[in-house]
Amino acid sequence: MTQLEYQYPKIDATKLVVEKTTEPRSLPPKEQLGFGKVFTDHMLTLDWDLEKGWTAPRIHPYAKIALDPSAIVFHYAVECFEGMKAYKDADGEIRLFRPELNITRFRLSMERLALPAPSEADLLACIKELVKIESRWIPENARGYSLYIRPTAIATQETLGVSPSSRCKVFVICSPVGPYYKTGFSSVSLFATEKHVRAWPGGTGDAKLGSNYAPGILIQTQVAKQGYAQNLWILNGMVTEVGTMNFFVYWINKDGEKELRTPHLDGTILPGITRRSILELSREWGEFKVTEGPIAMDDIKVAAEEGRLLEVFGSGTAAIVSPVHLIRWRDADVKVPLDPTNPDAQAGPLTSRLADTIMKIQYGEMEHPWSVKL
Amino acid sequence: MTQLEYQYPKIDATKLVVEKTTEPRSLPPKEQLGFGKVFTDHMLTLDWDLEKGWTAPRIHPYAKIALDPSAIVFHYAVECFEGMKAYKDADGEIRLFRPELNITRFRLSMERLALPAPSEADLLACIKELVKIESRWIPENARGYSLYIRPTAIATQETLGVSPSSRCKVFVICSPVGPYYKTGFSSVSLFATEKHVRAWPGGTGDAKLGSNYAPGILIQTQVAKQGYAQNLWILNGMVTEVGTMNFFVYWINKDGEKELRTPHLDGTILPGITRRSILELSREWGEFKVTEGPIAMDDIKVAAEEGRLLEVFGSGTAAIVSPVHLIRWRDADVKVPLDPTNPDAQAGPLTSRLADTIMKIQYGEMEHPWSVKL
Repeated sequence: MTQLEYQYPKIDATKLVVEKTTEPRSLPPKEQLGFGKVFTDHMLTLDWDLEKGWTAPRIHPYAKIALDPSAIVFHYAVECFEGMKAYKDADGEIRLFRPELNITRFRLSMERLALPAPSEADLLACIKELVKIESRWIPENARGYSLYIRPTAIATQETLGVSPSSRCKVFVICSPVGPYYKTGFSSVSLFATEKHVRAWPGGTGDAKLGSNYAPGILIQTQVAKQGYAQNLWILNGMVTEVGTMNFFVYWINKDGEKELRTPHLDGTILPGITRRSILELSREWGEFKVTEGPIAMDDIKVAAEEGRLLEVFGSGTAAIVSPVHLIRWRDADVKVPLDPTNPDAQAGPLTSRLADTIMKIQYGEMEHPWSVKL
Repeated sequence: MTQLEYQYPKIDATKLVVEKTTEPRSLPPKEQLGFGKVFTDHMLTLDWDLEKGWTAPRIHPYAKIALDPSAIVFHYAVECFEGMKAYKDADGEIRLFRPELNITRFRLSMERLALPAPSEADLLACIKELVKIESRWIPENARGYSLYIRPTAIATQETLGVSPSSRCKVFVICSPVGPYYKTGFSSVSLFATEKHVRAWPGGTGDAKLGSNYAPGILIQTQVAKQGYAQNLWILNGMVTEVGTMNFFVYWINKDGEKELRTPHLDGTILPGITRRSILELSREWGEFKVTEGPIAMDDIKVAAEEGRLLEVFGSGTAAIVSPVHLIRWRDADVKVPLDPTNPDAQAGPLTSRLADTIMKIQYGEMEHPWSVKL
């Protein structure tokens, strides 16, 4: 039996142990909430050992993690994570958005790292318990506010050998977050980066591994110095992702059709859950063509020059959508329209409609199977 | 002033604080030493904060590292490391091998992660102190035994934002290690991997980042299941690295010249210190052509078929050299000669000579400027 196949005892949500804090933290004023800086009272922890399987899941007071300095995670970046959110609807009930998709992707990321696959249903059940316990941290009657949930897996075997870890820790922490846009949308400018590459064929761009993020941080600071908000990652002339988000272009294509297009999942693209939701909603609407495939940066430039470019935006859990007004491509500025009917608008009509529809689902303003009540 | 430029107070070796353990561990029998499983009594720690600069360096008892679960290193793989060794010569004196090259590479890796550049001379001075304190852990009169030294840097800011860390920790741990080959050389078979790629132009293959290692672990287990010792990483038909080592081929090239060749440093290759030492020694010998440039796997196959392939080996700090006897390339086995004069040999004459020369330098059997006495 190989390490990857070995996974007994499995995670068992019925064995969840809950130890409540005796020192609950005070809630910060919601207006002061940023992203991922304040954490709640509790966390969920599960440990795995090759010879013992999984421990019983534990919800316990938020606490530091103490690891031997030789723990694999510190040396070979064997770590992966997820990002998901809990919302409160008008009745004060807690809702998650397509959480089963996050948990499946988490399992795939762990498997890509030769870590043991968790039982998805049990892990999700434990996360739901954690969120229920942290209910007071989710602002009510406050669209845009939510509880960001961060499942993380790290390899904890104490060895400098580069090999599959015989131990790992899964932990889940929660952070109350404010709206990505404090006062409506704020569109961004991008620098189309060719010299540095986020992911490549045969790499791991389609898994949510820590190792996909470290290399981009310096590059991000370099474009920020030049005044751009983010990198637009280009590989062989094709757009892949924007910053840490998926990329969408809405244009009148060369055949004269209105088309919403995003790069196809060729292994270099993270299969975003917001990306997938945007594709599914747009296809359901049936009002324009919706495609997945290569997008040449040159084609975006030509579309802008010919007046065929309608909107460009990024998509992700944090912002839902992030509208773009300019892309620096080689020696030229490619100007992207926002809303032609409103010179003050910071997002195009489709970008706004997608954000609004997804928020309606997330906050239970519109009943939809993607919104899961706890 | 940007975060990268900010680095005051700098690391100051004259401020080194030493706290000795009161519970020294017992030395394991040297015959039982593997790689990176046993650690010494002490470690070196330095912490950096954007607003406070570097703390005074501290040598203290080996201890767990406690971090907030939101520490950047657990999520975005902002971590890098080095591997270097200390040896004891026949007089019992401790020697390092070109340590300044490791420290420079460590600085470059940290800068690639938007972490603050350490003062190289001061960091090296502190590491030397640590090694002196751990002298009893380095076996005497035991060629092949050494003390493996692992400097590591991790980003410790407590935030889920993907941005340069405002805090980091540098720590150095030491592990006594036995000979890579217990009983002379043992040659290995490789699987030439095209589907998965270790590094890419525009990536970070030339820095010693944790993120370069995690993605290869699963792929390594896959070739191991098929009976191969390691991956030979191929990019666009060209050899890049072998496992976590640099790659060398020794052949009679198409022009009929004896040539030692290794991939050039195009950004996808780690600039190995053993690699560099092999190139410098071979060039000094002046007995054959020594080149750095692209190496097509097809050319290796043809050289083997035409009887021009002499030796193939990997190079790295752990093994110095690792001789290869077979490469699986697409649907064929490429057989690599070892020593034509000795059917029992597990390494070719050049591979053996390089290993022996480098060990002579490392263990002070031959005076050489690369060997630095403490």
